[in-house]
Amino acid sequence: MSVITLLTDFGRQDSFTAQMKGVILTINSACRIIDITHEIDSFNIKKAAITLGFCYKYFPTGTINVAVVDPGVGSNRRGIVAAAGGYYFVGPDNGIFSYIYQDCKDEVSVYHLTNNEIFLSNDSSTFHGRDVFAPVAAHLSKGFPIDKLGIKINDYIKINIPKPQINKEIIKGEILYIDHFGNAITNIEGKYIPKKATVTFNGMDIKIINYYGQADSDTPYAPYALINSSGLLELFIKNGHFAQEYLITEGQPVEIAKEFIPYHVQL
Amino acid sequence: MSVITLLTDFGRQDSFTAQMKGVILTINSACRIIDITHEIDSFNIKKAAITLGFCYKYFPTGTINVAVVDPGVGSNRRGIVAAAGGYYFVGPDNGIFSYIYQDCKDEVSVYHLTNNEIFLSNDSSTFHGRDVFAPVAAHLSKGFPIDKLGIKINDYIKINIPKPQINKEIIKGEILYIDHFGNAITNIEGKYIPKKATVTFNGMDIKIINYYGQADSDTPYAPYALINSSGLLELFIKNGHFAQEYLITEGQPVEIAKEFIPYHVQL
Amino acid sequence: MSVITLLTDFGRQDSFTAQMKGVILTINSACRIIDITHEIDSFNIKKAAITLGFCYKYFPTGTINVAVVDPGVGSNRRGIVAAAGGYYFVGPDNGIFSYIYQDCKDEVSVYHLTNNEIFLSNDSSTFHGRDVFAPVAAHLSKGFPIDKLGIKINDYIKINIPKPQINKEIIKGEILYIDHFGNAITNIEGKYIPKKATVTFNGMDIKIINYYGQADSDTPYAPYALINSSGLLELFIKNGHFAQEYLITEGQPVEIAKEFIPYHVQL
Repeated sequence: MSVITLLTDFGRQDSFTAQMKGVILTINSACRIIDITHEIDSFNIKKAAITLGFCYKYFPTGTINVAVVDPGVGSNRRGIVAAAGGYYFVGPDNGIFSYIYQDCKDEVSVYHLTNNEIFLSNDSSTFHGRDVFAPVAAHLSKGFPIDKLGIKINDYIKINIPKPQINKEIIKGEILYIDHFGNAITNIEGKYIPKKATVTFNGMDIKIINYYGQADSDTPYAPYALINSSGLLELFIKNGHFAQEYLITEGQPVEIAKEFIPYHVQL
Repeated sequence: MSVITLLTDFGRQDSFTAQMKGVILTINSACRIIDITHEIDSFNIKKAAITLGFCYKYFPTGTINVAVVDPGVGSNRRGIVAAAGGYYFVGPDNGIFSYIYQDCKDEVSVYHLTNNEIFLSNDSSTFHGRDVFAPVAAHLSKGFPIDKLGIKINDYIKINIPKPQINKEIIKGEILYIDHFGNAITNIEGKYIPKKATVTFNGMDIKIINYYGQADSDTPYAPYALINSSGLLELFIKNGHFAQEYLITEGQPVEIAKEFIPYHVQL
Repeated sequence: MSVITLLTDFGRQDSFTAQMKGVILTINSACRIIDITHEIDSFNIKKAAITLGFCYKYFPTGTINVAVVDPGVGSNRRGIVAAAGGYYFVGPDNGIFSYIYQDCKDEVSVYHLTNNEIFLSNDSSTFHGRDVFAPVAAHLSKGFPIDKLGIKINDYIKINIPKPQINKEIIKGEILYIDHFGNAITNIEGKYIPKKATVTFNGMDIKIINYYGQADSDTPYAPYALINSSGLLELFIKNGHFAQEYLITEGQPVEIAKEFIPYHVQL
C-alpha cells in the first residue's frame, strides 16, 4: 500500500487540501495519504524545504511526497517530479526540494512534468496542487513510470539551505528553523561539535546538555542547547518558548568555539 | 473502499472529531475518513455550505460527506441524509447542504433520519455528529439502503447562497468567501465575464489577469482579479493578504462592467 | 485492520507528527492512524489526560492510543504501555493516562518499556514519540505481545483528575475542561444531579436545560447548564464563547444545591 504525503501553505480552514485528497483517491483509492503540515507560512518556500527535509526519511521507501508552496503557479515555472534517495517528490520547480537535493546529491533525478494527459482535464492556472501534482502523485503510486511523466532536466532550481562554516577553532552557523515550542534549531550538526565546546548566541554563552529536563529549573528563562532528534544543535528554554522570550528569528548567527573559551574572553 | 469526509466547526483542540472517527471505524473499519476542515467559524452554516460546495465534486462518486455545524442540535431540527449528484450528504437539516441543492437541482433526494436503531445507543441531545451522523454515514458506507434510514422529505431547509445579478451591461455580485491567503472569492462565474471587462470593488478598478504571478511586483498592494480554480472571479494582492490589507468582509458588493468603462466615468 | 491514535502537544506546523506516522507506517503499513489532537497546550499533561479520557471509548476495542506530552523526555522518567478496558496506551509515565487508570480501575496492566530492540535504532533523548512510542505502537498493532515489550510495574505515576465531593445537600465540583466553543465542562456527572437542582457558579444561579438551542435567545449572554455528550455538567452561553465572556479558567469551583435554594438564600 503506497503512501502519499502532503505539505503545503494552504492552512486548514479551506477545502484546498481536501480537493487534492479527493483527486488522489479518485485515481488510487488504495493509497495512504498523510499530512505533513499545511501550516507553512504563506509563500515561504525555504521553510517548506526544511520542514520536508526534516521528515522524509522516516517514511517507507517509495513514499511520494507532494509539496506545494507555489507563488509562481500558472507562470512558466515548471512542475517537476524528483526521484531521490529512494523517495519521490512532486511539486513546483521553485527550490522546494532543495534540502532533498543537498541530502541525496548524486542520487537525484528530476523530470519536468510535461505529460498533460495525466493532469486533471480542467487544469487551472492557479491550483496545480490539485490539477497537476495530485494526479501525478496518484498515478505514480499506481506504478506509472516516472520517465513517462515528463522530460529529464538538470537545470532544476535550488535555493540555498545555509550550511555552517566549520574551521579549526570555530563553527559559524545560524538559526535554521523555529518550531512550535519556540525551540531554535540551528544548521550545525551535532557530529561536528567537540565535547569541550561553548555555544555563543546573541552575546550569551549557552551550555550544551543532553535533554530538555536537564536544564536547571531555578533559572527558568536561561537558554540551553542540546543535540536534537534531527542531529542538529538546538537552543531552548525549559518549559518555555525561547523564540518569543528572546525575540529570535530564523537566520540569526550562532557560533561554537571548539575549546571552552567564555564569550567575553573570546572578544 | 468507501470514503467518508468530515466538515465541522469543532476546531482541532478537543476530541470531538476523534469521537466521530472512532464511532465510524467501530462500524466500518475499512472506510477511508478524510477531514475537509474543522475550522469553520463557530455556528457559521453558510460558510460550511460554501466550503463543502467548493470541494465535494473532487471526491470519488459515492463519497459520503458528513457536515456538522449544528447550533440547533437537540431541538426539533431534523437530521437528514441527501443523495445528490452521485454523492451522499449527512448532517442537520439547517441549510448546510444548500450549495449542493443549488448545484444538483433535480438530482436531490433528502431523507429525514428517523431510523434510530442505527444511532448510537447512548444518543445525546448535544452531539449528533457522533451519535447520529457518524453511525448513519458508517452504515451507509457498508451498503445500508438510504431509504431505510428515514422518510423522504421535500420541505428540507435551504439557505440563500447568493447568486449574482447578470444583465446586459453589468454583473452585480458579492464577496462569497475569504480564504486562508486572504483572497476574496466572489460569486461571479468566469464564464459570464466577457473579455473586455472591468471589475469594480470598493471604488477601485481592478484588472483581470490569468494567474497570481502575473500581478505587477512594483505595486505590491495593488489588487488584481483572476478566474480561480473553482471557476469564480477572485480578488487578491500579490504575495499578500488582500482581506486584511483592505478590511474586506464576506458579502461586500463586486461589479463587472461589460465594456471597459472606468468606474468614475460610470458614475 | 488495527487503529493507532495520536495525541500530542506538538502543534501542526512542524513535521513531528509526520515523523511518528512515517515510523509507524514503515513498521505496519496496514494500520489506520487517527489524530485525536496535536493542540494540547505545551507541557499540559493533565489536559492531555482528560482529552484522551473523553474519547478513547468511542474507538474499536483493541485501539492503540499513543499520547505524548513529555517534558521529562530523556530523563529517567519511564516509557510505558498500559492495557486497560480493552484498549492499549503508549507514552511517557508522567500521569498522562491517569483518566484511564481512574476509569478502568482493576482492569489496568502497565509495563515499563525496556525492550529497546523494538525502538528506533538512532533512539534520541529528545523525541521518544518517534523513537520509542511510535515503534512500540506499530509492533503492538502487528501482534507483538505486550509482556515482551517490558516489565510489569505497579508504581506508575498517577496525577489527580479531580472528582467532585458529593454529600447530602450539595455537590462541590470544578471546571475540568474548556472546549473550542468556550463551553466549560465540569467534573460533575449528570447521574448525580437530582431533578430539582440549582447550579451555582461565580455567584450566579444557572438553570439546567436539555440542549443548547433551548437557551433563551432574548438574553444572549446568560449562562446555562446542560448534561453534555460525555455525561458531564457543562456551562455555556447560547451561540457564544462562555469562557471568554466570563473569563473562566479550568479549576474554578462549581456547586450544585440538591434542592432549589437560590444561591443568595443559601448564604
